[in-house]
Amino acid sequence: MMSHPGATASDRHKVVIIGSGFGGLTAAKHLKRADVDIKMIARTTHHLFQPLLYQVATGIISEGEIAPATRVILRNQKNAQVLLGDVTRIDLKTKTVRSELLGHTYVTPYDSLVIAAGAGQSYFGNDHFAEFAPGMKSIDDALELRGRILGAFEQAERSSDPARREKLLTFVVVGAGPTGVEMAGQIAELADHTLKGTFRHIDSTKARVILLDAAPAVLPPMGEKLGKKAQARLEKMGVDIQLNAMVTDVDRNGITVKDPDGTLRRIESACKVWSAGVSASPLGRDLANQSGVELDRAGRVKVLPDLSIPGNPNVFVVGDMAAVEGVPGMAQGAIQGGKYAAKAIVAGLKGADPSQREPFSYFDKGSMATVSKFSAVAKIGPLEFGGFIAWLAWLFLHLIYLVGFKTKIVTMLSWTVTFLGRNRGQLTITEQQAYARTRIEELEEIAASVQDTEKAAS
Amino acid sequence: MMSHPGATASDRHKVVIIGSGFGGLTAAKHLKRADVDIKMIARTTHHLFQPLLYQVATGIISEGEIAPATRVILRNQKNAQVLLGDVTRIDLKTKTVRSELLGHTYVTPYDSLVIAAGAGQSYFGNDHFAEFAPGMKSIDDALELRGRILGAFEQAERSSDPARREKLLTFVVVGAGPTGVEMAGQIAELADHTLKGTFRHIDSTKARVILLDAAPAVLPPMGEKLGKKAQARLEKMGVDIQLNAMVTDVDRNGITVKDPDGTLRRIESACKVWSAGVSASPLGRDLANQSGVELDRAGRVKVLPDLSIPGNPNVFVVGDMAAVEGVPGMAQGAIQGGKYAAKAIVAGLKGADPSQREPFSYFDKGSMATVSKFSAVAKIGPLEFGGFIAWLAWLFLHLIYLVGFKTKIVTMLSWTVTFLGRNRGQLTITEQQAYARTRIEELEEIAASVQDTEKAAS
Repeated sequence: MMSHPGATASDRHKVVIIGSGFGGLTAAKHLKRADVDIKMIARTTHHLFQPLLYQVATGIISEGEIAPATRVILRNQKNAQVLLGDVTRIDLKTKTVRSELLGHTYVTPYDSLVIAAGAGQSYFGNDHFAEFAPGMKSIDDALELRGRILGAFEQAERSSDPARREKLLTFVVVGAGPTGVEMAGQIAELADHTLKGTFRHIDSTKARVILLDAAPAVLPPMGEKLGKKAQARLEKMGVDIQLNAMVTDVDRNGITVKDPDGTLRRIESACKVWSAGVSASPLGRDLANQSGVELDRAGRVKVLPDLSIPGNPNVFVVGDMAAVEGVPGMAQGAIQGGKYAAKAIVAGLKGADPSQREPFSYFDKGSMATVSKFSAVAKIGPLEFGGFIAWLAWLFLHLIYLVGFKTKIVTMLSWTVTFLGRNRGQLTITEQQAYARTRIEELEEIAASVQDTEKAAS
Repeated sequence: MMSHPGATASDRHKVVIIGSGFGGLTAAKHLKRADVDIKMIARTTHHLFQPLLYQVATGIISEGEIAPATRVILRNQKNAQVLLGDVTRIDLKTKTVRSELLGHTYVTPYDSLVIAAGAGQSYFGNDHFAEFAPGMKSIDDALELRGRILGAFEQAERSSDPARREKLLTFVVVGAGPTGVEMAGQIAELADHTLKGTFRHIDSTKARVILLDAAPAVLPPMGEKLGKKAQARLEKMGVDIQLNAMVTDVDRNGITVKDPDGTLRRIESACKVWSAGVSASPLGRDLANQSGVELDRAGRVKVLPDLSIPGNPNVFVVGDMAAVEGVPGMAQGAIQGGKYAAKAIVAGLKGADPSQREPFSYFDKGSMATVSKFSAVAKIGPLEFGGFIAWLAWLFLHLIYLVGFKTKIVTMLSWTVTFLGRNRGQLTITEQQAYARTRIEELEEIAASVQDTEKAAS
């Protein structure tokens, strides 16, 4: 492993970073002054600020505000190159990473590797649910859901069939974690405020929002007190919270739920959101096969205390892909992991012995979730609080973490308009979303026989 | 035709408006105080401010800024209902409009009809060009092009093949009207400023932007003086302007052009934009078949002097769908036409004789096009001017016409950042755009044999 100041690109220590999320971007930034050659290979061209994804899905902010171009962020970090590509294989023996982009395959060698490929939605073995209940993990997901949520109201306005209208105006959010709570709250606010008075045939405020979870509590990691607080607030907003309710099936027209007593019941709903579980990037399996490292049930890599994997002290797994006792799958876990990996790489360049590394330790900065405008819950160390103060803290912190000065201002404006008024600036859906959603053609054929007349509908 | 104040919805005069563009929305707004029952049926849920579409395509502004939800705009106009649907047939005999939405068919009766369905891109009989060179008519088009433009740079950064890289970094805009001029200028600024320094393997400023037209001039409707001005400015920015160049073929990898001397030449280019011609909504054909009204070559309806069609004094065609001597296919033509139709309908309610209507007369408020930051050309009556003053006028007018106070501020901010700095806030593309564009799978197969290694590329 050669490295010395003033080395040329070709003999510099090669760092490959997989992923441009919190973990990957933080690792890259903390290598800014290191004499390394960084290649960040990511499946998207943007750095996604996932905690605000629900606001893109519900029309409050634009995708650009939470997904700035990674290469623009790293423009001035000359030792870093950003490469678009889907990493399909990591080869620990040849120390290379294989990625693909539109039919081209690229093989990139590394000396050090930071794997921060994140996690996708888990359907617990029922991947066919995904088509009917998209997850909330990417910009694609958020825009798809925006189209489905607003599209359901549009279809309901045109329908003369009360049962179909009810199905269209029933929104089910599966999973009462932070994302589920935020989605349920925002769909309710969209229906009750933003869309209120914009329809003539339906009353958007009559829409039903159901938040389901197989667990017995809302926001379980926040503890009972805050969970109950969030639950009470959501219920006051009209959200129907159904706990201990296990989803057994999801199809185009609704979901089937098993209650604790074993009875199955059906909820007719056109628009479903899945935020019930995560499944780490399949790259973890690659590592397990080659290094013998274990994976947990969610597919996360059970890394060593220094976030590396057995026999590969320069291969780090950080963020949602790593299973580390006491580290939650949140931005802070990824940020701190990315920073730790970068520092370990820099220490290695200076000759430090990997076996002497201090183990990674997570500093819990707390967690929070918004429930509705003016209301959030927050847990910071032993401190637990909810309501307006928590919401202000949430507002402040999220603004601080958004990348770019202009983005902060635009987002603040978007929030002002939405929270003080009721309007939302990003309710746009594409024609593709309105007419040609996944397998919608099939639906069209099924429905083609149904004839509605405007007369009957008005 | 019954109508009296206080009539119930069912016996009120029924106005159906097809389309939510400038013509349709203006007609609806000017019927606000009329005792009518308005149904606006549109293919999109938004009112599109088409003149700024190129800024969405090139990452300056978000789709929400130029495409607010129509039903939110008309929230307080209680006599208007907004309905999503694709109008597939107008039946003049039964006075009904048929529309479709996701397999459901709706039949809507009218007493008065305002047809403002606009125009799509025309490929002059070569509709297969569309796949390889999208038009610039809808939000879908703009987002698709954003993905293609930025995707081409991303692919070039990864390519080790100089010919392929050149193909990826050659952008061809077909059609030197306002949209073509604006697109060419903005792609050049994107490459020269926004993306400058963000790549390590390619130099984005070396990208080639070609603006092609079969006609001998840039911006022909603006006259020779302003056309030349715009041309000089674009050429100073490095845009390669090729006039008298007729496109004879477009495929995935480039275009074929016929020069005045009859020679055919090939331009290798991955990303093409088509802004060469318009083709009015096919609903015009429906009207021609039923009323005998003639269509012009672009499929526009040759309406009577009162914008109605023969034998149907209460059926108006306005905007890009109408062929009226001296009225250009621009926002102002549609706005004035929509207003005229609304007034004629109101007069009719008061008993006015349609045969006595004053003919529609167009007031030319002028036209303008931006070429680059700080530079535009404008023609207002006998006044022709270019440069910074024209650009300020353009800026001011477009801000005024944007819907919503917040939108004006956000857009002003976006412009400040882009025009004074170089950053753009909306460079986000979806994974679908990055990996699964139209027929891209086919391309993947073709290219699958090509193997690149990162080593060779860097």
